[in-house]
Amino acid sequence: MTTVSKEMNTMDELTMDITKDIQENFDLIKKGTMEIHNEDELLRKLIRSKETGKPLVVKLGLDPTAPDLHLGHTVVLRKIRQLQDMGHKAFLIIGDFTGRIGDPSGNDKSRPQLTEEEVLMNADTYREQLNRVLDRDKTIICFNSEWLDAMKPSELLQIMARHTVARILERDSFKKRMASGEPIGLHELVYPLLQGLDSVEIEADIEIGGLDQKFNILTGREMQQKNGVEKQVAIFMPLIEGLDGEKKMSKSLGNAIGITEDADVMFQKLMTVKDHLIIRYLNLLTDMKPTKINELIRDLTERGTNPKEVKLVLAKEVVTLYHGVKAAELAQKNFEHIFVQGQIPDDVPAFKWQSSDNLMSFLTRNDVIVSRSEVRRLVAQKGIKVNDQLILEPEVIGLRSGDVIRIGKRQFVKVA
Amino acid sequence: MTTVSKEMNTMDELTMDITKDIQENFDLIKKGTMEIHNEDELLRKLIRSKETGKPLVVKLGLDPTAPDLHLGHTVVLRKIRQLQDMGHKAFLIIGDFTGRIGDPSGNDKSRPQLTEEEVLMNADTYREQLNRVLDRDKTIICFNSEWLDAMKPSELLQIMARHTVARILERDSFKKRMASGEPIGLHELVYPLLQGLDSVEIEADIEIGGLDQKFNILTGREMQQKNGVEKQVAIFMPLIEGLDGEKKMSKSLGNAIGITEDADVMFQKLMTVKDHLIIRYLNLLTDMKPTKINELIRDLTERGTNPKEVKLVLAKEVVTLYHGVKAAELAQKNFEHIFVQGQIPDDVPAFKWQSSDNLMSFLTRNDVIVSRSEVRRLVAQKGIKVNDQLILEPEVIGLRSGDVIRIGKRQFVKVA
Repeated sequence: MTTVSKEMNTMDELTMDITKDIQENFDLIKKGTMEIHNEDELLRKLIRSKETGKPLVVKLGLDPTAPDLHLGHTVVLRKIRQLQDMGHKAFLIIGDFTGRIGDPSGNDKSRPQLTEEEVLMNADTYREQLNRVLDRDKTIICFNSEWLDAMKPSELLQIMARHTVARILERDSFKKRMASGEPIGLHELVYPLLQGLDSVEIEADIEIGGLDQKFNILTGREMQQKNGVEKQVAIFMPLIEGLDGEKKMSKSLGNAIGITEDADVMFQKLMTVKDHLIIRYLNLLTDMKPTKINELIRDLTERGTNPKEVKLVLAKEVVTLYHGVKAAELAQKNFEHIFVQGQIPDDVPAFKWQSSDNLMSFLTRNDVIVSRSEVRRLVAQKGIKVNDQLILEPEVIGLRSGDVIRIGKRQFVKVA
Repeated sequence: MTTVSKEMNTMDELTMDITKDIQENFDLIKKGTMEIHNEDELLRKLIRSKETGKPLVVKLGLDPTAPDLHLGHTVVLRKIRQLQDMGHKAFLIIGDFTGRIGDPSGNDKSRPQLTEEEVLMNADTYREQLNRVLDRDKTIICFNSEWLDAMKPSELLQIMARHTVARILERDSFKKRMASGEPIGLHELVYPLLQGLDSVEIEADIEIGGLDQKFNILTGREMQQKNGVEKQVAIFMPLIEGLDGEKKMSKSLGNAIGITEDADVMFQKLMTVKDHLIIRYLNLLTDMKPTKINELIRDLTERGTNPKEVKLVLAKEVVTLYHGVKAAELAQKNFEHIFVQGQIPDDVPAFKWQSSDNLMSFLTRNDVIVSRSEVRRLVAQKGIKVNDQLILEPEVIGLRSGDVIRIGKRQFVKVA
């Protein structure tokens, strides 16, 4: 990590003292980022904001399609929350202007054309979900149609005239689509400029986004400069991998953790994170200070700490963010009860034993396991225990009241 | 030339009689054109217009930069005049909407950014000049800002969304500029669509232009169709070569004939047209009927007529269009007087002879020739005659009242 003092050598005209809190804030902002354009400017803005007491304007552009947020989305949102906790305010701009245009050609399935009602409904969904991550008092949600609708068509063309086709087509996603012969609608070339206009309009100090937004966010910088507004600092966050440890977190891949999932589930899922991603999750999904994370890294690499210990810290940290510290503690207790100590939880379902039952019929009759063949499969995998004894012949086993059957790691059934 | 009856074979559903006047009009419209998209549609429109008595709407787009019209421009304008003479009305659309945008990047020098005042002033200049070619009662000059300014920016983007970048960049001029790395402003991609919107707005039946407008005019056809308006017929006219016989007519190349030039000059210039362009000039610069032009072609190719004879017909025809038949007859008389019979015209300027004069001092003192060295140059080229006698020593020649000095081919001076 580059230290600030090293950066300072290149900042001749910057002759202020970087106070301890600014240094700490800077380090926290930098945590987990992929790129910052540029750090000098960010430092200047932080210092000025402290001196003047004027919070920075942090911008995030939001797609107007209905969101269903998982921890992958919070990589960007947490960065904003960290800035809010430092006193800055967030402008979340819902791109309803472009959302209402969509892609009438139908070429781009990811851009359905939305009605005004749909946009408003989606905005409510956003608000409800964003409130779980952001500081509601420092969050302004707005619609870019507010200023873009007010433009004259000639103004729009004049803005377009300041940009060349070649330059816009340099954008990665356009380049790829051009190369593969995939159609690009003429309107799409304007979207980066409209996004830039949003930055001009709200006079954004910082815009946060994924690297896929690099072109658009840097275009915003240029456009602010052309319009006499101080350039925004661009902060690029990475995409986070899901629980499979490889692919980017996504609901459709089944490797995601939803931010509304209950505390126990969230905790359990976080405990399945692949070891090589523990520190990455701490960096991207929590607000933990870099100094503390560095300690944990040392635990893992120098002090021989079991990764499971650090995972427990991670899980508790994340669950606390979404469910509070009490729920997190309880979730940890429940988790340790079942998974670490192998104990039986308190609320295990119980079914009556009939005289004709054997273990096989007991499990299938009560729909504990869907089929006889599934029971056989589990037995073959050594996945069924009764009172901690491995079962090999389920059709000859008789039970009595109070016996506990354990299926796989997490499922328990009692004989009533 | 394709005959109409041959075309008709492909027009199954068209079962009307093509009357003699429609056939004649069709032939005259077709005269000199490069391409018509397409002839069937044109015939249909002509027939319907005759049946309903409703004139066709003929569209021409005009650049809002200041015009200075020469015969090259009239290739398109005469075609419109011919349509007006058949009863149809012309909409001349001044592209002030795009003119006011211009090319702020300064990349395209041919597109200066114009103020509203400049646009209006240029429109007046247009009106004055167009009245020399078009039928003022059947000409409507309008500004496309009227409807384009009223658009919402979202409407503009929605229109853009129906066109792909790849398709627009297929346009010849874009392709060339992209290939050579010349910058293309993003706004320029929209211009073809705006021009198409003009066709939608005025419900054009016919749009006329040069082949350089092919993409734009055909885009207009598509856009009309998408908007439920009958497609316009596209008529493409060629560019005409100038008096040098090779390069396209252009003021800056010095090979042009201005439409405001006086009758004698116009007549004389037309008599210098290269022989291979006589018929082309008749086709593109006059309203002469194709049957009559075919006669002249036969005169030249079969009957051994001297091209000069046909040129006289051409010159008189063109001068009549811009100065009336009387002025054209006088111009022809003057031309024949000087150039054909070598005679002295009636209105030769006269200067007094002074006792101290010789030919040299007489010519330079009266500013007939700018300098003594110029006199000497002309003498050396055998360019100065007195009463048809070649002069070799201008400084020893004395003259008397009534002598006529001929300088070069066309300039005459008399001794008073």
